[in-house]
Amino acid sequence: MRLTNFTDYTLRALIYLGLHQNEDRLVTIGDIATAYGISENHLMKIVHHLGKQGFIETTRGKGGGMKLALAPEQINLGDIVRGTEEDLAIVACFQKNGPPCPIESVCVLEGVLGRAMQAFFNEIDGHTLADLLKPRNKLLNAFQTKTA
Amino acid sequence: MRLTNFTDYTLRALIYLGLHQNEDRLVTIGDIATAYGISENHLMKIVHHLGKQGFIETTRGKGGGMKLALAPEQINLGDIVRGTEEDLAIVACFQKNGPPCPIESVCVLEGVLGRAMQAFFNEIDGHTLADLLKPRNKLLNAFQTKTA
Repeated sequence: MRLTNFTDYTLRALIYLGLHQNEDRLVTIGDIATAYGISENHLMKIVHHLGKQGFIETTRGKGGGMKLALAPEQINLGDIVRGTEEDLAIVACFQKNGPPCPIESVCVLEGVLGRAMQAFFNEIDGHTLADLLKPRNKLLNAFQTKTA
Repeated sequence: MRLTNFTDYTLRALIYLGLHQNEDRLVTIGDIATAYGISENHLMKIVHHLGKQGFIETTRGKGGGMKLALAPEQINLGDIVRGTEEDLAIVACFQKNGPPCPIESVCVLEGVLGRAMQAFFNEIDGHTLADLLKPRNKLLNAFQTKTA
């Protein structure tokens, strides 16, 4: 039971962007890739996704880069995860057009797992990016120690 | 975000076994495979796993097969899922020996996702196989309609 790497890296990218929001220069894909040691290729897809969803603004050209389009308090973690997880079908029978199960119409499990997923989202829906940025100085130090 | 097919099929196998527990003959892998239209090959691994975990008893030879080793009320769904999901690391930084993340030691996200996972399990820990068997007649009918 895992979130996709796409979700994981999206959340990490948002943390980095939130920490560097009010600096003189915009954040680049290279900055985030170096900070976490992850591939620029993956990050390009993530930046495209975050732009499309309205969470970040990007500027092309020299001095270009990206920044958050909303205040961290306005970026709900549940919304992020629902946007990045293509497959929220916890088991096959939750999939639209998935393989048929003979007991689907009378199965109790579907309700139990549905409520479990709801409980999972209730927890993350209670948080925004601002919560993730609270240990601001410690986070900045952790990145600096890594790149030092 | 999905449970593995291994978990899905394990839960389905247990439902079938629970419904056919007090019959004259033992349930075979072929019975379960036919009932759900899933592969015997997958089911063999599941039966091996359930036997090792003490949830079922198997008998070899002519007239052989399997049955639950415990009453359905004693088979907790959370225990089943923890037993079948090899990877409960919701994101990479939860993995032992996973790739290092520079902010791991100060990251708030780990706590949020940890509590979300706990909320997920709190829901399923509140249920046993007996709950899944409650619509007994409807379940038996659904299987009969399928194989009729």
